[in-house]
Amino acid sequence: MSDNQRPILPTTDEAVAMAKALLRTAHHGVIATLEPDSGRPVATRVGLATDADGAPVILVSALAAHTPALRADPRCSLLVGEPGKGDPLAHPRLTLHCDAREVEHAGADEARIAARYLAHNPKAALYATLGDFRYFRLEPVRASLNAGFGRAYALTRADMLG
Amino acid sequence: MSDNQRPILPTTDEAVAMAKALLRTAHHGVIATLEPDSGRPVATRVGLATDADGAPVILVSALAAHTPALRADPRCSLLVGEPGKGDPLAHPRLTLHCDAREVEHAGADEARIAARYLAHNPKAALYATLGDFRYFRLEPVRASLNAGFGRAYALTRADMLG
Repeated sequence: MSDNQRPILPTTDEAVAMAKALLRTAHHGVIATLEPDSGRPVATRVGLATDADGAPVILVSALAAHTPALRADPRCSLLVGEPGKGDPLAHPRLTLHCDAREVEHAGADEARIAARYLAHNPKAALYATLGDFRYFRLEPVRASLNAGFGRAYALTRADMLG
Repeated sequence: MSDNQRPILPTTDEAVAMAKALLRTAHHGVIATLEPDSGRPVATRVGLATDADGAPVILVSALAAHTPALRADPRCSLLVGEPGKGDPLAHPRLTLHCDAREVEHAGADEARIAARYLAHNPKAALYATLGDFRYFRLEPVRASLNAGFGRAYALTRADMLG
């Protein structure tokens, strides 16, 4: 069966609200990036918050694999939604396809984003100001919500922001 | 700072043991695959067990985005290691770079792998025999262990298996 035959349900207000809630309550996620030399996909954990419009923001070290990867190719995706008890695949999760944009160091956007990030993740204050840490804003392209078995939704950038 | 300057610690028996324990105790992980048409990296959740030699095995639906992706390009990576309390980046996690190999349906390997998978994830018996579900074995290529801040190890296939 091809990917085109996936049974995608019509988008509802409830699906959009679930997707936004998964993203806005997440303190971490797993980012998929492209390894610069090999082109292989790489899954790594990142700390996470959201900007004022709902776009994800991450705080990353230049020493982590995802940072040079995002600088070489901004295409990435972010998985949020943690499994609870029982079958992990029965729990909702969101894959957000994004293009990463590095936040200019010491610029106006960084001040706003850092304030939001540290309010959401206070323990990150221990390292946020170290020289090799930078914020990236992940511009949503589209998203896939899996709300549990057989409940898949395809969401747009407009669904996720605002 | 380039990725080549990452401070990788010499591999120890303890690091290898931690990496194997993270993988063998995981019931789920996040897989990064390559979207066939766009080449974008995609992060999705998968159910997980290990084969007799320690290689990860996943049970996936043809309806999920990762399945056609792995059939088109077997390169993938798997993140395991769940955050506990406190800063999520202080908790150990493992990124395992793999090449996926679909397990032949109704073959001898499938019987062994299904028995191991269902012993590890009993609730998956509800859907494991549905027609669109297949097992893939993820052949380890190399791995990155992040054992907490500043504690990074580069592991080989030989470290992870056996």
